[in-house]
Amino acid sequence: MENRTKNSGKTTAKSRSYTAMSSKKSYSKNQGAEKKPAPPSIAVSKKETNQAAKSRMVKERKPRKALQTAQKHASPLKFMSLGGLDEIGKNMYLYEYEDKILIVDSGLAFPDDEMPGIDLVIPDITYLTKNKDKIAGIVITHGHEDHIGALPYVLKELSVPVYGTNLTIGLIQCKLREHGNLKESNLNTIKAGDRLQLGPFLVEVIHSNHSIADSVMFAIHTPAGTVIHTGDFKIDCTPIDGSMIDLARLGELGKQGVLALVSDSTNAERAGYTMSESIVGTKFDEIFASAANNRIIVATFASNIHRVQQVINSAVKYGRKVAVSGRSMENILDVAGELGYMKIPKGTIIKLEDVKRYPSNRVVICTTGSQGEPMAALSRMAMNDHRTIEISSNDVIVISASPIPGNEKMISKVVDELFKKGATVIYDALDDIHVSGHAKSEELKIIIGITKPKYFVPVHGEHRHLMLHKNLAELMGVPSENCYILGLGNVLEFNNGAAKINGNVPSGQVLIDGLGVGDVGNIVLRDRKHLAQDGLIVVIVTIDSVTGELISDPDIISRGFVYVRESEDLMGEIRDRVIKTVDTHTDLSQQKDWSALKVAIRSQLNTYLYQKTKRSPMLLPVIVEV
Amino acid sequence: MENRTKNSGKTTAKSRSYTAMSSKKSYSKNQGAEKKPAPPSIAVSKKETNQAAKSRMVKERKPRKALQTAQKHASPLKFMSLGGLDEIGKNMYLYEYEDKILIVDSGLAFPDDEMPGIDLVIPDITYLTKNKDKIAGIVITHGHEDHIGALPYVLKELSVPVYGTNLTIGLIQCKLREHGNLKESNLNTIKAGDRLQLGPFLVEVIHSNHSIADSVMFAIHTPAGTVIHTGDFKIDCTPIDGSMIDLARLGELGKQGVLALVSDSTNAERAGYTMSESIVGTKFDEIFASAANNRIIVATFASNIHRVQQVINSAVKYGRKVAVSGRSMENILDVAGELGYMKIPKGTIIKLEDVKRYPSNRVVICTTGSQGEPMAALSRMAMNDHRTIEISSNDVIVISASPIPGNEKMISKVVDELFKKGATVIYDALDDIHVSGHAKSEELKIIIGITKPKYFVPVHGEHRHLMLHKNLAELMGVPSENCYILGLGNVLEFNNGAAKINGNVPSGQVLIDGLGVGDVGNIVLRDRKHLAQDGLIVVIVTIDSVTGELISDPDIISRGFVYVRESEDLMGEIRDRVIKTVDTHTDLSQQKDWSALKVAIRSQLNTYLYQKTKRSPMLLPVIVEV
Repeated sequence: MENRTKNSGKTTAKSRSYTAMSSKKSYSKNQGAEKKPAPPSIAVSKKETNQAAKSRMVKERKPRKALQTAQKHASPLKFMSLGGLDEIGKNMYLYEYEDKILIVDSGLAFPDDEMPGIDLVIPDITYLTKNKDKIAGIVITHGHEDHIGALPYVLKELSVPVYGTNLTIGLIQCKLREHGNLKESNLNTIKAGDRLQLGPFLVEVIHSNHSIADSVMFAIHTPAGTVIHTGDFKIDCTPIDGSMIDLARLGELGKQGVLALVSDSTNAERAGYTMSESIVGTKFDEIFASAANNRIIVATFASNIHRVQQVINSAVKYGRKVAVSGRSMENILDVAGELGYMKIPKGTIIKLEDVKRYPSNRVVICTTGSQGEPMAALSRMAMNDHRTIEISSNDVIVISASPIPGNEKMISKVVDELFKKGATVIYDALDDIHVSGHAKSEELKIIIGITKPKYFVPVHGEHRHLMLHKNLAELMGVPSENCYILGLGNVLEFNNGAAKINGNVPSGQVLIDGLGVGDVGNIVLRDRKHLAQDGLIVVIVTIDSVTGELISDPDIISRGFVYVRESEDLMGEIRDRVIKTVDTHTDLSQQKDWSALKVAIRSQLNTYLYQKTKRSPMLLPVIVEV
Repeated sequence: MENRTKNSGKTTAKSRSYTAMSSKKSYSKNQGAEKKPAPPSIAVSKKETNQAAKSRMVKERKPRKALQTAQKHASPLKFMSLGGLDEIGKNMYLYEYEDKILIVDSGLAFPDDEMPGIDLVIPDITYLTKNKDKIAGIVITHGHEDHIGALPYVLKELSVPVYGTNLTIGLIQCKLREHGNLKESNLNTIKAGDRLQLGPFLVEVIHSNHSIADSVMFAIHTPAGTVIHTGDFKIDCTPIDGSMIDLARLGELGKQGVLALVSDSTNAERAGYTMSESIVGTKFDEIFASAANNRIIVATFASNIHRVQQVINSAVKYGRKVAVSGRSMENILDVAGELGYMKIPKGTIIKLEDVKRYPSNRVVICTTGSQGEPMAALSRMAMNDHRTIEISSNDVIVISASPIPGNEKMISKVVDELFKKGATVIYDALDDIHVSGHAKSEELKIIIGITKPKYFVPVHGEHRHLMLHKNLAELMGVPSENCYILGLGNVLEFNNGAAKINGNVPSGQVLIDGLGVGDVGNIVLRDRKHLAQDGLIVVIVTIDSVTGELISDPDIISRGFVYVRESEDLMGEIRDRVIKTVDTHTDLSQQKDWSALKVAIRSQLNTYLYQKTKRSPMLLPVIVEV
């Protein structure tokens, strides 16, 4: 206790030098934030940055020692994940120090084959709703769905401030507006270089590279030490925005001493380096040059505004107008354009409806649907179901994306349909027209090597990615026992420089189906899968409550089992067997033991149907007592 | 008619020189075939082969002219596909000349996401069942499921002889034995070099390379010309059985004049060459050398006996015993072993149960499950559900396969589980431990270049593969108008050297669900998908047939919709709305217009539920009239 008191005193004292006033250059179009007083702890005026930098420089003279001191007297720092381990998706990571919790990211996941009918999956935030008062804030690394998609749901439960870079906040606003909870939210803009004091956490914002602009890493300075939380990243030496990931700052932090590195494992199984985004631009130029007589359509991820920028660059170079198709891409480009992230010469963008007015070789259409999503614009074009665009043999279609695992077949279907219409399709199997947003193994090793973490926690990956990332860390000299492959909810505790897994917090997945949040669970899913496999048979039995006898022939209704019109014999046999079962169980009917009678009917039909068809439809006996 | 008569005379005369007697070296373990008299037209004694070769040599002096003559007076030759176009699977191709049909392959396809509950898909053979008497026979290129899997179903409808190479027939026997129709089938062994006269079709068997042993191509000589039907192939200069694809014979045929090339398009989108199977053996050796202290488990396709042979080779080299897990692999190895396709030193194979008796670094387990199939041996091992094998951190597991599109997520799941058990897993993303069985673009070009076909028909592929294969043919000088991208059922007619699409025969897919063949169609599938999405609600309404009023509260049963115990309000509201609907429609009840009443209930609930939950469960109103 004494230690703690001492320590908090120190923290406060120490943190003061980091804390800065609200930035003058804050995001002026952030209406939600504008109407509220700016939260007290946002960084940074230029002068103050310099001060902070100075104070940092001072510390750098004896970095290790200073950190050691901090660690010695510190309370334990806890790290846990509510999403993003053993999965790609629903990223949500918590840092807890004394009575404060810092949340990094609030993402969603997309349902897998085991979740029929489910729209989205978000993390189980029971632990947070039970500890509402402890939450210091949510900091967001970047604007992808798997990092911001759960916010509309999370913010309905937790009324806490959210911090993100300009574009990230812009995209969050879009999302909250759709869900109708923008007004009550507290959104705040930060930028690379900022230092943000949230309770005991001094969050330093570090510029990064990824497949969406304005991505950042965080160095989370706490009295127990500094954790570097990478978020999604790659090392792009020639990114489209011109600004390479701030390796220098990571190196500085490494020199000062990093307690733990929490790092993106997505591409840990891929050898080598991920190519620069700008490579794709070169490829686009080649395609534009060789398709001089064709209309060009480029499909890519709506959020990859740098990719779209490169389409625009090639279009301008080759004298084409650009139209955009797909609501999500339109929205994101609107936000990105308003915030100044796009460089678009005047008159370049035209309305989709106006494409017809130009010769086909003077336009490019930028579209969503690169994952073959059935409702997206490209799929609609492929299926002749698009409002304005019709595909012809004059089209050159570039699918500038690689399939997210699970989407391969959907994409193939779209490509095939486009081929059937005679279009030329350039897709990942044929040419390099996409680069990943995630660091491959050599880049991952660079980050480990430059930050020299004492502990290493691979996150953002399936289990194999985490394991392979751990192997890389060991290769870079992190002792195996200092690498922690966590499970969701595991509490990793750093205590005076030592680490151990100490307990669990509730974690899991909450399924979103339509408006329902969490009202579909395992039983409902099991039933859906059963129904999908073999359909159902409803048997309606009307029984005289006195005699226990059947009043009329049972009704048999079947759906998803067999084509009934061609299976009259089978239906007749089912009816006969139900009659026989009821007849031999009048005792049950007289005792009104309906559940026992239902069991008898079910078991009789189950055996019969399996033997006859090798199928097991869901059987729903209904007994009407008259 | 005159022409025809003349021509048939010629055919018979000509074909005589090709026809040979039944081979002395026919497959002696083929019990089904043994009990029947051998069909008259099977090739080939050695001497007779020489004769045939001689007669071929004679013709080669004036090949073009001879062929021209044949074409001039020939009846039209028709080609059509009942499976294998715009899909990878259920390969079945027909050649029709005058009143005879030759069938090439009878494969199955695996169901896609749009076919919940379906086990297998086979071609619609209506055209064949209506023309039973015309069928001269079925010739099979190789023993993969997508080329032989429909035989048990096809042979139930068509009583025709089947011809395949030794291993192919062995595998077909296995399959027919399981389905209980081996005895009544007429199976006949052929081998590369054989010439088989089936009606007007002289089928020449040509050695090929693929990912299963004993694969062949066919040169189908007809009075209208020669068609080369490749089946699945690659060009493997160093195959495991030592025998490279017979390019020389293809070249000869090319010189003589090939009317059409019908060729495998699977890898048409891949540039370059497919590596030799023997490359994988080198890799296995490396892995065996470096895993000297570990147990090794290799998962691969059950039918790839050359791959298994290479595992055995490495095992022998490094002093390990080999055990096999997985019924399909055991079966295939039994067949291949019996027929002499495997070279296994005595004492190498041990029972799976005996693996425990050996030090773990003295055994290799060869297993099924390389596609992550949930019921296969590797998945069972991963899920701790295998009878004898338990995975530990001492295991090195090699998944020697690449994902078939659609299986990526299942494989990932298995790999992740193996990683969780601490095993080292080597899979396709990490290392080159698999080669394809299909020719890539350079090989495809070689085949086109060497056979110099007048017409080109790409088959065995999704639409994009067919199109890209056509591009390759054009590159090799086949005129675009001589390339035919067909759809299933399209009749391509070659008439006196000209070709055109002339009509259609019935085609499509027949779904197998349990014992049901074709009893699940679009309506049943639509219902299954609906049920999987949103579940169902059954509403049971008991009505007094005189007053038209409700006798008791309606029963509401729901499955796969919401978790009912937590949705009592919703269920109550549904009940109230049903009551209200019935109350306001007593006129319908009195008129006993039950279908109108059902429509009213459905529409009422649909609107309410969609508004309340944004879901549309299947609604089944049941009216019991008392």
